[in-house]
Amino acid sequence: MPPPGVLGAILTDEPYERCLHSYGRSFRDAVRGSFGQYPNPPDLVAKPASEEDVAAILDWCASTGQACIAFGGGSSVVGGVEPDISDKWKGVVSLDCTGLAGVLEIDRRSLAARVAAGTFGPALERELGREGLTFRHFPQSFEFSTVGGWIATRSGGHFATRYTHVDDLVESIRMITPAGLYESRRLPGSGAGPSPDRLVLGSEGTLGVVTQAWLRVRERPLFRAKATVRFANFDRAVEAVRTVSQSGLEPANCRLLDAAEAAPSGAGDGEHAVLLLGFESARVRVEPLMSLALECLKDCGGEIVEQTASPAPGAAATATAPTSGAAADSWRSSFMSAPYLRDALVLTGAVCETFETAITWDRFSELHAAVLEAAAGAFRDATSGKGSISCRFTHVYPDGPAPYFTVVAPGGAGAASDPSALLGPWSTIKQACSEAVLAAGGTITHHHAVGRDHREYYGRQSPGLFQAALAAAKRELDPSGMCNPGVLLPER
Amino acid sequence: MPPPGVLGAILTDEPYERCLHSYGRSFRDAVRGSFGQYPNPPDLVAKPASEEDVAAILDWCASTGQACIAFGGGSSVVGGVEPDISDKWKGVVSLDCTGLAGVLEIDRRSLAARVAAGTFGPALERELGREGLTFRHFPQSFEFSTVGGWIATRSGGHFATRYTHVDDLVESIRMITPAGLYESRRLPGSGAGPSPDRLVLGSEGTLGVVTQAWLRVRERPLFRAKATVRFANFDRAVEAVRTVSQSGLEPANCRLLDAAEAAPSGAGDGEHAVLLLGFESARVRVEPLMSLALECLKDCGGEIVEQTASPAPGAAATATAPTSGAAADSWRSSFMSAPYLRDALVLTGAVCETFETAITWDRFSELHAAVLEAAAGAFRDATSGKGSISCRFTHVYPDGPAPYFTVVAPGGAGAASDPSALLGPWSTIKQACSEAVLAAGGTITHHHAVGRDHREYYGRQSPGLFQAALAAAKRELDPSGMCNPGVLLPER
Repeated sequence: MPPPGVLGAILTDEPYERCLHSYGRSFRDAVRGSFGQYPNPPDLVAKPASEEDVAAILDWCASTGQACIAFGGGSSVVGGVEPDISDKWKGVVSLDCTGLAGVLEIDRRSLAARVAAGTFGPALERELGREGLTFRHFPQSFEFSTVGGWIATRSGGHFATRYTHVDDLVESIRMITPAGLYESRRLPGSGAGPSPDRLVLGSEGTLGVVTQAWLRVRERPLFRAKATVRFANFDRAVEAVRTVSQSGLEPANCRLLDAAEAAPSGAGDGEHAVLLLGFESARVRVEPLMSLALECLKDCGGEIVEQTASPAPGAAATATAPTSGAAADSWRSSFMSAPYLRDALVLTGAVCETFETAITWDRFSELHAAVLEAAAGAFRDATSGKGSISCRFTHVYPDGPAPYFTVVAPGGAGAASDPSALLGPWSTIKQACSEAVLAAGGTITHHHAVGRDHREYYGRQSPGLFQAALAAAKRELDPSGMCNPGVLLPER
Repeated sequence: MPPPGVLGAILTDEPYERCLHSYGRSFRDAVRGSFGQYPNPPDLVAKPASEEDVAAILDWCASTGQACIAFGGGSSVVGGVEPDISDKWKGVVSLDCTGLAGVLEIDRRSLAARVAAGTFGPALERELGREGLTFRHFPQSFEFSTVGGWIATRSGGHFATRYTHVDDLVESIRMITPAGLYESRRLPGSGAGPSPDRLVLGSEGTLGVVTQAWLRVRERPLFRAKATVRFANFDRAVEAVRTVSQSGLEPANCRLLDAAEAAPSGAGDGEHAVLLLGFESARVRVEPLMSLALECLKDCGGEIVEQTASPAPGAAATATAPTSGAAADSWRSSFMSAPYLRDALVLTGAVCETFETAITWDRFSELHAAVLEAAAGAFRDATSGKGSISCRFTHVYPDGPAPYFTVVAPGGAGAASDPSALLGPWSTIKQACSEAVLAAGGTITHHHAVGRDHREYYGRQSPGLFQAALAAAKRELDPSGMCNPGVLLPER
């Protein structure tokens, strides 16, 4: 149906744009895209330049029976932006928020910045960097994801402890809903009723379109200390990381790689588990913190492989890139290029999947074993027994780690010409591992979000009455259910 | 209406119990209680001994048109437990949760404990202490408040930075609602949709009755460092505290007292603002952290008055009480006895009120000045210009402080025989200050909760659509609206 004249300028049905807004960046998306399959494109792509535009699009969709899917960077790996919706909708608009971009205001005294939701990671850091500030939230999708997307999906970032999710870095949120404006007050903390921000964080576009947020920023780190510590085996390393996570020291980086994960990234020798540890501060030297942490780790059987600090004692502190250890550098570069590598692997006919969870320490080794067993079973069923699975901790808490698993397996015969030779095995592996995670007491996602792909598992892990409450909240903010239908909750 | 036989054993209409469950501990409650005024007693007090009992009481209330108010320790200072409800209810039951008490399970590896909601602070610490553990959440109401009450009201505790509210210390929650059981999964962290726990945190008994929670506990601190630092004036001290709060050091204690607040507590000389600073850890010596913080504070004009650390370097660490500074000791003792002092002051005919907020740093000095001006105006209007107001920071965040104000003023003539001579001036002061806080951009409460007394202000500060969402959520969990009607939201 043709949009009213005033909206015509911000809507397009250009095929390239529709394809581009069909998918996120999951393995399934990459496979389907590379085979030219686009079964669920949006009918139109909207590129609003203002909040008024966003409201107008929502109004138009509401009045014409169309669904609307907020689209940030499009880096969802869980089917969070794919217009795979029921036939009851007369159309579907993908609402691309990236025209609402930029740092709008900086409050240096409170270390906070008002940022438009469509701002991409690099632009955010560039603009904040001019003032010597940083948000320090670097999800693996950093280059291709936006502030609004981070908020909508509770993304996990730079800090391995404490401020792991974007949740804690958000001071207030502004969201346009079909029912009107939802804006929380800027507050460093509050105990006034349940938090209005926490309802938006993780809502994945189902309640409205996040347009702005006040973010808690910080001064750029001048002081850093990094160390690489290795362990004879993974179990020993897990115990050591548990000790550090419960020490109260809260390192900025505390990434544990199992031997299989460490070797290809160049951070390990294929025998040892490797821990990458880092402290950073804008104000104070962090070697004392590192020394305390390394004492803990040595007591737990850790062997320090390398250790650096910057600036050198006595030297002036600058905000330039720090001297880093070879292992840490190697791993960081591998971390940043992994998504590119994944896309290349798709073309070679390999099945690749990453999934992540969180679990309390008492149940971790059981979960880890169950996931490995489930993967092995899926390999037997779907890839002639071939495949590998490795594990790292992306974030750690005093009460448990967030384990992240990487699976690579060969696709079936004909993978070069038949997507089902890739997607069949992928689906078997994904299902088996998801079931294992859920049965072992984990969460279906620590920071990848729910989207459409995890919805069934999410429905099983979250309290039934919470889902009823969330559905009721949605009915208030989005009476027709037009906002990203089928994500988080089943379509009404 | 008579309860069914099976419930008779857990319900009482004994007048003393009804009086005891009439009030919390606000100034208004203390005045009315001391004048023997009990206008809104519950008809019955329930003392369930199990979750089955809780469910049975809720069922009975639902089927008979009665309201039900969950009652923990009864230390609300905001009218959170007073049965001041509309006439549409056929009766009202105060559901006293303190029979559901005790530490039910300890997971030492994950540093978590499953605790019944009616457990009081001292009992919790005693039971955890046997295992060398602590929850380290010490609201001023600690002796007289319960775990369930802390969760329902998002109480503020021991830690001046970082884990300020109980919110961050809760791993999962179990709540009985009129619609059934609401139980979240034990997880150290999750990104799966909006957090189900955050809907319960701050719900103040309006969604159901919290019966259990897994809490994040920790090892008892063995290493401590404390310091008292004074500043020539409050503004200077505020800047210094801002610097420390933004340093990333995150001291356990960082309480700033203005000169008026510091003097009567024995921590100050009446001229200087005083900062009480503390670090603690179960695993590592904390002097390095203290040294870094003191460097910051000295750079900002702070003068170190006293400094202690325990154990002495080289001495064995024990979990016994630490050597502490005289000022810190003096202040802590004053902090713990303040509520008792308040009750004594009521009897002498003084008006006393404490209220608290949070505000970003950029707006703090404006808020502070506005509150002082509002108080002075209220003193002119209501107490012949007499009265004092002082300020401290109970908690600080990188983006702003949580200022806490204490007001003492003389009551009107006849305060010994006429409660309105106390409650009239109190109401004038409370309203003026609340308006000032709200107009300056603060929250109506950082950790005292909303209850009935703050509801109107809460309604103005929180997004209208959030309140609509919360009301909708309540309709799912509490279809008849019987759970603590009139708290947070207007009665339906």
